[in-house]
Amino acid sequence: MKNGLKRLRMEAGFSLIKEDPASGARRGRLKTLHGTIETPIFMPVGTQGTVKGLLPDQLKSLKAQIILGNTYHLNLRPTSELIESMGGLHRFMRWDGPILTDSGGFQVFSLSKIRKIREDGIYFQSHLDGREVILTPERVLDIQAKLGSDIAMVLDECPSAESSRQECEDAVSRTLKWARQARDYVEKTGFLAKGHHVFGIVQGSRHKDLRQSCAQELVEMDFPGYAIGGVSVGEPEEEMIPQVQMCTEVLPREKPRYVMGVGTPVQLLKMIASGADMFDCVMPTREARHGIAFTDNGKINMKNNRFREDNNPLMERFSDIETGRFSRAYIRHLIVSGEILGSVLLTMHNVRFYLDLMAQARQHIEDGTFRDWSNQWIDRYNG
Amino acid sequence: MKNGLKRLRMEAGFSLIKEDPASGARRGRLKTLHGTIETPIFMPVGTQGTVKGLLPDQLKSLKAQIILGNTYHLNLRPTSELIESMGGLHRFMRWDGPILTDSGGFQVFSLSKIRKIREDGIYFQSHLDGREVILTPERVLDIQAKLGSDIAMVLDECPSAESSRQECEDAVSRTLKWARQARDYVEKTGFLAKGHHVFGIVQGSRHKDLRQSCAQELVEMDFPGYAIGGVSVGEPEEEMIPQVQMCTEVLPREKPRYVMGVGTPVQLLKMIASGADMFDCVMPTREARHGIAFTDNGKINMKNNRFREDNNPLMERFSDIETGRFSRAYIRHLIVSGEILGSVLLTMHNVRFYLDLMAQARQHIEDGTFRDWSNQWIDRYNG
Repeated sequence: MKNGLKRLRMEAGFSLIKEDPASGARRGRLKTLHGTIETPIFMPVGTQGTVKGLLPDQLKSLKAQIILGNTYHLNLRPTSELIESMGGLHRFMRWDGPILTDSGGFQVFSLSKIRKIREDGIYFQSHLDGREVILTPERVLDIQAKLGSDIAMVLDECPSAESSRQECEDAVSRTLKWARQARDYVEKTGFLAKGHHVFGIVQGSRHKDLRQSCAQELVEMDFPGYAIGGVSVGEPEEEMIPQVQMCTEVLPREKPRYVMGVGTPVQLLKMIASGADMFDCVMPTREARHGIAFTDNGKINMKNNRFREDNNPLMERFSDIETGRFSRAYIRHLIVSGEILGSVLLTMHNVRFYLDLMAQARQHIEDGTFRDWSNQWIDRYNG
Repeated sequence: MKNGLKRLRMEAGFSLIKEDPASGARRGRLKTLHGTIETPIFMPVGTQGTVKGLLPDQLKSLKAQIILGNTYHLNLRPTSELIESMGGLHRFMRWDGPILTDSGGFQVFSLSKIRKIREDGIYFQSHLDGREVILTPERVLDIQAKLGSDIAMVLDECPSAESSRQECEDAVSRTLKWARQARDYVEKTGFLAKGHHVFGIVQGSRHKDLRQSCAQELVEMDFPGYAIGGVSVGEPEEEMIPQVQMCTEVLPREKPRYVMGVGTPVQLLKMIASGADMFDCVMPTREARHGIAFTDNGKINMKNNRFREDNNPLMERFSDIETGRFSRAYIRHLIVSGEILGSVLLTMHNVRFYLDLMAQARQHIEDGTFRDWSNQWIDRYNG
């Protein structure tokens, strides 16, 4: 942090440090029970209580500030009761930084074949053993309380991009009903008073009026932060950023805004310019396991024969971390040979790439140079 | 090292520091171009230029002193020429400690369906693409020179335990012929003079006369060290240690002795008592990927339900390394969930277990307490 930056406002643990004059980009800071995170921020995904292939110390060395866990998955296995009895998710996985947990609402979309939506909640047939699992607005908060989540999500209904207008209206209606139940429940249980955050989730698909009325109603419920869900669920790419923009127009300036499950490096920069603060995505970790590395000049497939004799590191400016010491030729050899270490090294690299991009964005917002830098960055990446 | 231990003798980089009065156990030290190793020693296996799942710094933190590479595999992929052009295997994989490379002779046994043995060498059909690959006594040394191996192996022929007496005689005969060629070749090329070690390999299967005559002829060729091959290739377990004993009876006291590809923790202690100094085995790394952890009280299967709520570390006395910080319940969760990190953590643990066992053995040889300690250790492990 540079000196002289003015804290504009603080509410419910979030302080807005600077706003970019040329875009909607914001530089903020969110306090949680396990430390403060600097926004804009990318959150590596640890669905099952582990960011795939990485040790907590490695995440720290990559400068991860906060990671994700998933209510649906952890509740099934090893169960929230077990994790609670082990001292909570932080202690279970030996990660002492902040953790945000998704509510299971996204699995309405991703596991659409094994779930039914009813007015009281979502009925899943477990993808592990077929037994029925019911997620209600109260139950997902109980689970997240047992996990010890720093930032919990309310239960929402995430429709796919193919849903009809009527289906989207129904989804928003249920999402709002469940959000109200959730808001009442955390008040009653004292979860918020203990310092945990609970974010409401805006749905509404591509429909501006639905998104904005959903956002407005959530704002009236006064959540500590707001998430934008249902983005990148099958719609054309050009519709994604406008959907974020529709929401941020309505969401309060002084609360953090989290776009769920998105996206590419370029999409992240565009969402930042649209006023979003927090992001998560499996892309950097999943692509790593498929042999793909992110670089300043775009993605590269490490299986490609052109890296066979390439003695350069993946990216010169990352030579301070473990992955930076290895040549592209060696990483290609590992990937081609199906060696675990290839996935691990690329996962470290890609997570670092995403986190570093956010660090650059933060600096440029502070310096008032975000828009120009961001445009240049995107041109180079795409070019 | 304690003070007052007497260096008994040094030859070709090997010094014998102490011999156990109550067994054949020896405490030694072998100098190589990339550092000195303390024997008895276990060498983690890095067949394809990586100890599966581990970073070089992690190997260092586990106190690995020397690791293995494999001529057959690395020659096929990425090829010895490529590794040489990248500065050798040490630089390619960023491991700056000693490396021992196998010659490909073991693949006579492990890849018996895709190889033919001729008088001039072994003809393989590549397991990757079917093309013919010929390993001759000279070629395997060229490959190992390109890799930059600290301890190279001569080409040998490793027969299975089912081989007839005649087949074993033929294998010994070819092994000796190839060893002579190898000895002449390293003299001619100056490989030994540059400080690399080359070990001859004793074959002969279960036949004492063959093993001992093979060993004697190799000793006359005056190699810097000797390996005992063809152990644990299908014979009953009770025949394994006697085969090692047959060889160490004949091998010179002042040279290092390496038993190839064996074995369990108990077998390691018994081989040390039979006068062997160096060992390698895929067991700790392979078992880890199958969810098996070694402990002082025997192997445990981490999938077992009894670890579901076990908040203890795998082994209390390993709590100084990364794996020691995690509970059995968490590791079980990772293994049951098919998470990469489960394999990584168990690999770290098992490699540490093997290396720690060797460290204990070294100390007890120095203290003159090896035999009693070893018997107690085996009783507890088996009990």
